[in-house]
Amino acid sequence: MNTKLQDRVLTGDRTTGKLHLGHYVGSLKNRVEMQHQYDMFVLLADVQALTTHYEAPQEMGRHLRQIALDYLAVGLDPAKSTIFIQSLVPEIAELTVFYSMFVTVNSLRHNPTIKSEAAERGYTQLYYGFLGYPVSQAADITFCKATLVPVGDDQLPHIEQTRKIVRRFNELYAPVLVEPKAVVGEVPRLIGLDGKSKMSKSLGNAISLDATAKEVQEKLKVAVTDPARVRKSDPGHPDVCPVFSYHKAFAAESADEIAAGCRSAAIGCVECKQRVAKQINDLLDPMRERREAYKVHPERVDEILVAGTERARSIAKETMQEIRSAMGIAYRLGEACN
Amino acid sequence: MNTKLQDRVLTGDRTTGKLHLGHYVGSLKNRVEMQHQYDMFVLLADVQALTTHYEAPQEMGRHLRQIALDYLAVGLDPAKSTIFIQSLVPEIAELTVFYSMFVTVNSLRHNPTIKSEAAERGYTQLYYGFLGYPVSQAADITFCKATLVPVGDDQLPHIEQTRKIVRRFNELYAPVLVEPKAVVGEVPRLIGLDGKSKMSKSLGNAISLDATAKEVQEKLKVAVTDPARVRKSDPGHPDVCPVFSYHKAFAAESADEIAAGCRSAAIGCVECKQRVAKQINDLLDPMRERREAYKVHPERVDEILVAGTERARSIAKETMQEIRSAMGIAYRLGEACN
Ligand code: SF4
Ligand code: SF4
Repeated sequence: MNTKLQDRVLTGDRTTGKLHLGHYVGSLKNRVEMQHQYDMFVLLADVQALTTHYEAPQEMGRHLRQIALDYLAVGLDPAKSTIFIQSLVPEIAELTVFYSMFVTVNSLRHNPTIKSEAAERGYTQLYYGFLGYPVSQAADITFCKATLVPVGDDQLPHIEQTRKIVRRFNELYAPVLVEPKAVVGEVPRLIGLDGKSKMSKSLGNAISLDATAKEVQEKLKVAVTDPARVRKSDPGHPDVCPVFSYHKAFAAESADEIAAGCRSAAIGCVECKQRVAKQINDLLDPMRERREAYKVHPERVDEILVAGTERARSIAKETMQEIRSAMGIAYRLGEACN
Repeated sequence: MNTKLQDRVLTGDRTTGKLHLGHYVGSLKNRVEMQHQYDMFVLLADVQALTTHYEAPQEMGRHLRQIALDYLAVGLDPAKSTIFIQSLVPEIAELTVFYSMFVTVNSLRHNPTIKSEAAERGYTQLYYGFLGYPVSQAADITFCKATLVPVGDDQLPHIEQTRKIVRRFNELYAPVLVEPKAVVGEVPRLIGLDGKSKMSKSLGNAISLDATAKEVQEKLKVAVTDPARVRKSDPGHPDVCPVFSYHKAFAAESADEIAAGCRSAAIGCVECKQRVAKQINDLLDPMRERREAYKVHPERVDEILVAGTERARSIAKETMQEIRSAMGIAYRLGEACN
């Protein structure tokens, strides 16, 4: 583990289903790069997944291992990245409860991310845990004293809430917690195969990271293209074509050539799709190899999760001890209770 | 421990200061009796104390031991009652987080106890943790599967919320939790020495359980009496006199005689107060003896708290395992994580 690196990064995913190319472009690629420079903590957020999936947690174990496998396949290296399971770090729940004593309901209600997510999901009623999402996210970030949190701009209000909680805690009790910085990268969003919305498993417009080469080809075959280009001889408009956005995302070096060929009708959609399918398969091939290696030894994935979770817990316990001392509730009644 | 008794009782106090005669009359006396019939769990609610005392948790350790000593002094028997510390049972925080996924913000906002407590405390803003009090109380009650919860009627909405949470959990996942029953006793409220409000440490109108005999006499000396009785020869109105309410609470058998003596001016306030001071001191004397015995061995109080908390935790761990299995998040990745 990169324990000597000064900055610790917290990132992760809610375990609501296996990952796809949109996740790769939006965050996974970046994490694989960051793990070489930072002490990377990757959270499998199964408890937070419950905020929206409390009705079907039975799937959680499967999703959890699928995502872990996705992580390992894309190249997260367990020697560099601490992959851990939220529900197995009870200190996160304890911190959530402590922080909730000094966060007002109004500040949560006015959190723009909570508001827009609730609207997106069509919630007519807010659940208490959903409203408290920013508080539990503060617990995720602070239990391991992460200093950097890569986020899209839509998540900025959450990080701001965490920073406020940290300042308030340090001011009320003792300067134990670390204020994290948001690393606001441009988070590229991949458009779905339907050309309508961003790639999303639930919309059925996604290519999973575990897709076979043939699945990639077939999914692209039926992908939406420029609707104005009816015959091959019609010039196309790459800017409105989802297939072209895949060229930009996965084969930037030849994107200009494709755009020109499309506009001049020199290249047909069939060929265009075959070329990008090949590029995507070239990207996925080494992932498939790593995935297969783990699939032969599924117990290794569990071992990695156990080791990551153990590391996370030992750090959580240290932080919790500091928190209890700061708050004057480190009673020292005897070892047995701790 | 009374592990074979079918019903388990959960009760307890927020650790915001030492206890007084009002607590004795309102709940402690009842607990001491109940411990012989039930498996009694007594919660030192230091985390819930933070909902209103988050600004001064440094006092918590002192309050906690004071209250433990009060419990032992009044006659809670550690062989019959499991006295434990909330903050040392992290499963309570975990359950709070799980339950919060399916409790709506509105149901909490409309909880009459939350509304009236917020009004009483003059809160212009609700804190998230304060709003969630009924959720964390459900966690307190359910982690140990308490079947009986002695409460005053003002607390009934909380127990109703717990029952709802239990039903919802059992329906969503698996029938793991037990619906508790409220034991609504008449909870006698002791009026304060000022005759204005109920006895309360913060109002300075209370007699602490650790008061010396002399303190009891002196506090009573300055207690408010019937204001219309100016001279000893004036007939008094015992029903408006706080001192008379102490006669009723602590010496019911001679209360009629006192009332008659007061009304006929046969007894003066000085004598009346001396008599009730004696009754109160007779009640407190055996408590003083028990308190002194523990004060000589303060480590025994800690040992009792450790043992009680250990028992609570081992039950909490069992419940948590059932909860995780019911929810499909008992991943069984290996012993090390659990
Ligand atoms: S040639 Fe390619 S970029 Fe142009 S419309 Fe067809 S699929 Fe889209
Ligand atoms: S005699 Fe006793 S009951 Fe009557 S007014 Fe005096 S203190 Fe109160």
